[in-house]
Amino acid sequence: MAALTVHPDRLLPADPGVRSIARRLYQEVRDLPIISPHGHVDPRLILDDTPFVDPTSLFIQPDHYVTRLLHAGGIPLTDLGVGEGPLPETRAREAWRLFCANWPLLRGTPVRYWFESSLTEVFGVTERPSATTADALYDQIAEQLVRDSHRPRALLSRFDIAFLATTDDPADDLAAHRALRDDESIPTRIAPTFRPDRYLEVGRPGWPAIVKELGGDVGDYAGYLAALEERRRYFISLGAVSADHGHFDAGTEPLETREAERIYSSALAGTVTPREAVAFRRHMTFEMARMSCDDGLVMTLHPGIWRNHHPATLAAHGPDTGHDIPVALELTAALRPLLERFGTHPNLHLVLFTVDPDVYSREIAPLAGFYPAVYAGAPWWFLDNPSEIRHYQHAVTEIAGFSRMSGFIDDTRAFCSIPARHDMSRRLDAGFLATLVAEHRLDEDEALDTLTALVATQPREVFKL
Amino acid sequence: MAALTVHPDRLLPADPGVRSIARRLYQEVRDLPIISPHGHVDPRLILDDTPFVDPTSLFIQPDHYVTRLLHAGGIPLTDLGVGEGPLPETRAREAWRLFCANWPLLRGTPVRYWFESSLTEVFGVTERPSATTADALYDQIAEQLVRDSHRPRALLSRFDIAFLATTDDPADDLAAHRALRDDESIPTRIAPTFRPDRYLEVGRPGWPAIVKELGGDVGDYAGYLAALEERRRYFISLGAVSADHGHFDAGTEPLETREAERIYSSALAGTVTPREAVAFRRHMTFEMARMSCDDGLVMTLHPGIWRNHHPATLAAHGPDTGHDIPVALELTAALRPLLERFGTHPNLHLVLFTVDPDVYSREIAPLAGFYPAVYAGAPWWFLDNPSEIRHYQHAVTEIAGFSRMSGFIDDTRAFCSIPARHDMSRRLDAGFLATLVAEHRLDEDEALDTLTALVATQPREVFKL
Amino acid sequence: MAALTVHPDRLLPADPGVRSIARRLYQEVRDLPIISPHGHVDPRLILDDTPFVDPTSLFIQPDHYVTRLLHAGGIPLTDLGVGEGPLPETRAREAWRLFCANWPLLRGTPVRYWFESSLTEVFGVTERPSATTADALYDQIAEQLVRDSHRPRALLSRFDIAFLATTDDPADDLAAHRALRDDESIPTRIAPTFRPDRYLEVGRPGWPAIVKELGGDVGDYAGYLAALEERRRYFISLGAVSADHGHFDAGTEPLETREAERIYSSALAGTVTPREAVAFRRHMTFEMARMSCDDGLVMTLHPGIWRNHHPATLAAHGPDTGHDIPVALELTAALRPLLERFGTHPNLHLVLFTVDPDVYSREIAPLAGFYPAVYAGAPWWFLDNPSEIRHYQHAVTEIAGFSRMSGFIDDTRAFCSIPARHDMSRRLDAGFLATLVAEHRLDEDEALDTLTALVATQPREVFKL
Repeated sequence: MAALTVHPDRLLPADPGVRSIARRLYQEVRDLPIISPHGHVDPRLILDDTPFVDPTSLFIQPDHYVTRLLHAGGIPLTDLGVGEGPLPETRAREAWRLFCANWPLLRGTPVRYWFESSLTEVFGVTERPSATTADALYDQIAEQLVRDSHRPRALLSRFDIAFLATTDDPADDLAAHRALRDDESIPTRIAPTFRPDRYLEVGRPGWPAIVKELGGDVGDYAGYLAALEERRRYFISLGAVSADHGHFDAGTEPLETREAERIYSSALAGTVTPREAVAFRRHMTFEMARMSCDDGLVMTLHPGIWRNHHPATLAAHGPDTGHDIPVALELTAALRPLLERFGTHPNLHLVLFTVDPDVYSREIAPLAGFYPAVYAGAPWWFLDNPSEIRHYQHAVTEIAGFSRMSGFIDDTRAFCSIPARHDMSRRLDAGFLATLVAEHRLDEDEALDTLTALVATQPREVFKL
Repeated sequence: MAALTVHPDRLLPADPGVRSIARRLYQEVRDLPIISPHGHVDPRLILDDTPFVDPTSLFIQPDHYVTRLLHAGGIPLTDLGVGEGPLPETRAREAWRLFCANWPLLRGTPVRYWFESSLTEVFGVTERPSATTADALYDQIAEQLVRDSHRPRALLSRFDIAFLATTDDPADDLAAHRALRDDESIPTRIAPTFRPDRYLEVGRPGWPAIVKELGGDVGDYAGYLAALEERRRYFISLGAVSADHGHFDAGTEPLETREAERIYSSALAGTVTPREAVAFRRHMTFEMARMSCDDGLVMTLHPGIWRNHHPATLAAHGPDTGHDIPVALELTAALRPLLERFGTHPNLHLVLFTVDPDVYSREIAPLAGFYPAVYAGAPWWFLDNPSEIRHYQHAVTEIAGFSRMSGFIDDTRAFCSIPARHDMSRRLDAGFLATLVAEHRLDEDEALDTLTALVATQPREVFKL
Repeated sequence: MAALTVHPDRLLPADPGVRSIARRLYQEVRDLPIISPHGHVDPRLILDDTPFVDPTSLFIQPDHYVTRLLHAGGIPLTDLGVGEGPLPETRAREAWRLFCANWPLLRGTPVRYWFESSLTEVFGVTERPSATTADALYDQIAEQLVRDSHRPRALLSRFDIAFLATTDDPADDLAAHRALRDDESIPTRIAPTFRPDRYLEVGRPGWPAIVKELGGDVGDYAGYLAALEERRRYFISLGAVSADHGHFDAGTEPLETREAERIYSSALAGTVTPREAVAFRRHMTFEMARMSCDDGLVMTLHPGIWRNHHPATLAAHGPDTGHDIPVALELTAALRPLLERFGTHPNLHLVLFTVDPDVYSREIAPLAGFYPAVYAGAPWWFLDNPSEIRHYQHAVTEIAGFSRMSGFIDDTRAFCSIPARHDMSRRLDAGFLATLVAEHRLDEDEALDTLTALVATQPREVFKL
């Protein structure tokens, strides 16, 4: 049986001279608290502090990074319990075996990195997953999951997470967040994030019912705006620092108020056309920026994804099951109306994400290198791997410097992977800065100052913590 | 006179530590047999086993990689005999002199690598090509070409090519393939490839005559489908494993049968519009996937090329003369209909190629990282160079892992370059894997296992050999 | 106070073995004269030889690379005197202090590299800019600016600039250039560049008045063409070697003469539609290529920029103030008409620039690797940084070889940064070639020959000097 070990120098540059600089830099930030300003952990997980049920429901079922790789390798999502709650032990164990037997499918991916970090550092695993070791590993993890030391709050504390943002529906009553806020035993600041997508996409099936969930008098456009503003205030009152927007494109062309009112009424009546719905959504993205200038919520933009590319999988297993596929992105024209109006507004922080890597140097860094409101969001979804992170580092900093970066965003629903993801980012940042030092482009004191900023202070500034 | 030598470590990473890992890995796969599942060697070359005529007709005239570089450098294609058969010796020698005198034009390109490997390893050349050495090199090569040791079959055997696919017209009687199949003296398995492009592009000038070449009753749409299916069966009966499709875009939107019938009739009548022709071709790409699910032919897609960009060169020298220029590619939307219907079909292997490098991480790897039918095809045409291959390695594996790669595809009509191309790929794969080992992202046993799979087993699985 | 030093090995590869090769190569070209075939230095600067006024008007106010980074960092352009002439000393000093205090904003950017090179090598600065050192540095530089050794002509000579092209309006009388040509004391050859954009964009506000500036009888289309040809001849008579074109896209579809005449008349009458204006401009780009074939001016194309993205900044501070933002670029289709007609014309040199990096390997290198008229222009605007230059080097040479590159273009209006920019390029070229040597893809004599060509001979050939 092969050993599973994580090397202290992993992900640092291979050149011995550069590596030794990187090691010194990494050392200084390795143990700093984690700031996670955007992610998908369920606040009830922390609130209820219920022990995790088994290795499969912890590591496999909810993590579309893992399940999509297995699915591509020919394993039906049904066999992995995707979209289901905890499985009966037989099925859970069978899914775990499938995963272990297919461990080689993860080679070369960051999923492998996150996974082996979690296994070794959280559960003390020392054997490589395989068909042979599957059952022993299952037992080894399961045995620990029932201990107090491995319940959610204990891990949250052990992971040293200083700030953790969740992602929430504007109609959510945020009861979990309210309870967490009042619980002084939790050292982590846990905040909701305002995610209004479905309320802005008026052409969705069932939208007239959806919009009513917002509360307030949404019978006309003015009431709708007021309801959104009210929900934002409520979120802010419970600690929210940002609003997240994930539409197909990044359009922000505003409409005349009269036209917005007209489309809104059509939408309520169920007669809106697809073209009108798109125009309205772009108008509302502009309005969201306006509200952010008013109330201070940081605005994060996650455009350029074809959501749920495989309808049969959506129908069988729900959304977020690994087939949100990128499309070509355009920001320069799409964001111009928003930036013309708000690009120098002192209250606006607009963090731009992309899954089209050409856009980092073509559009995001140039925009962030001029507009004080714009920040270059860290690599996201498929791009959150060492290769694309290195591309982002170069592409953004050489055009816009380090100060326009958002700092790392883990964006994950895989709780145990949070420290590994941040650790990967710190190692890669240290390696990148070490290269600049080795090429005599930065002095080492500047590199250390920059690295500390990226890990500790910049996320706080960008997300107004 | 400068020496021409090929260094045993060429293309391996420069860092001494990484290089020594890469050397160990490369050593293990260097001598494995070549699997070439897509290329453009003429089967008659092997069948007839006629000696090559001269260095120019072997190395220059048919190789648009070489001739386009010389053309860009100001040498008319006419002087190189492009599009002609073997030249009279005076012209052949003059073309060879032009090539040698312009050897520096190849610096930095993979053509240089392939060429110097062929010269040194196949013909024992030890002097750098130049105006001074041109005649001596010509003689040195010409003298060997008449020997039995340098006839096509001898080289095929020396190159240790286990599998070689050609590219063939669906109307081809495959007589050469039939004869090769029956010739037990040939150790290589040689297979035809079904390439139906011109039968699917109903707006082409002369299409009503073209479609008749298919045979069968193509007077209506149903007969046309049946004829295509019949030709596919015939190809399969002679060993074909794949069908190759190279249209302008990757659209796969199906039509209602009635609409397909209507357009087909218009096309036969010569009244089809360009828009209808495009719609029909996209529909037929969908149909080709359907047929692949039925008959098992692997489907390879080579979209995103503006073929024959310079009409005057096409008119004077024919197609495939170096001016097929890439265009921006889109797959996520274009392939959705096909993948919605067949993306999880156990019989479909769909290998996606691109000449737009941004598309590797934006679309191909994400699709291959979810759909079990999709594989990421190796870098092709302009992208088959070390830099783009390294980009492909990172972009694809960090998103989809190693198991979703097609394995190397040489796609060449330059027979003598086949081993050099595969050798380049093995060196680059070894170097990439060595980097992962040096960065402690893979253990060395895993790297070796992966490299062996990429060279030996994966192409067999992807192409169903 | 931290020291400011520039290391002799800066920007060379970190690997010790590769670096030692790079050092040897760099050494050979470090001191070669500078050839600057495209830039934005004002010829009056050299003609008048007036001492620079102060550090702020020299280094900050005119350099949008610097001011956009400060602006992104929250400093209003007004505080930096952008768009103004020399400031009163209090304001100039205050702007300088802002710059020094924000020196960390430049980390990781090439601006930092250029700036520290200028400070140390031109002004002997030895302390890192900061709030603490700002005043001392201001004084140290100001004191030198009044010396003869730091007047423009003395620096031009010290920088060893053999050729310097400016950028000029076709209606300019080129009086400064005429005087410079007649001044035998200037060793540098200084040439104007024909930049006709605004005369070709007939939909611009005020165009009917603009076109009259050309002189000649521009009352009809034929007279307009004749006037442009006449102005090109005039530029050539004063040393111009190229014409530069910077429109939104690269379209070159020609119009029927009658249609061009019709649109021209509409434009004069102020009734042209936006669509007609675009069609006319694309037609005129085709015509500019035709004229280049006739008169030999090299044609440089700088498409793909959304000029003046932030209207409020344009209104307050003028153009070229840091918010010209890239957009996705397409060349394969756009240039086809031009290349179909002139792509093999012996008189045409067409240098293609892009700010969309994906386009290097997707379109520019493939075009330059076939058409003898096409050259791959060096990285421009946001892309003129080490990371993107390295990408360009790989992307272009592996497809088209070294001989299709334009040689370095500084494109700057920051006079003191010219040597640092060329030095950066030489270091990066040396490093790239050293990597090819270390990977045994080129012999060292070939690398040296190539490097010398890139620095010394190729720009002369491409720009017909």
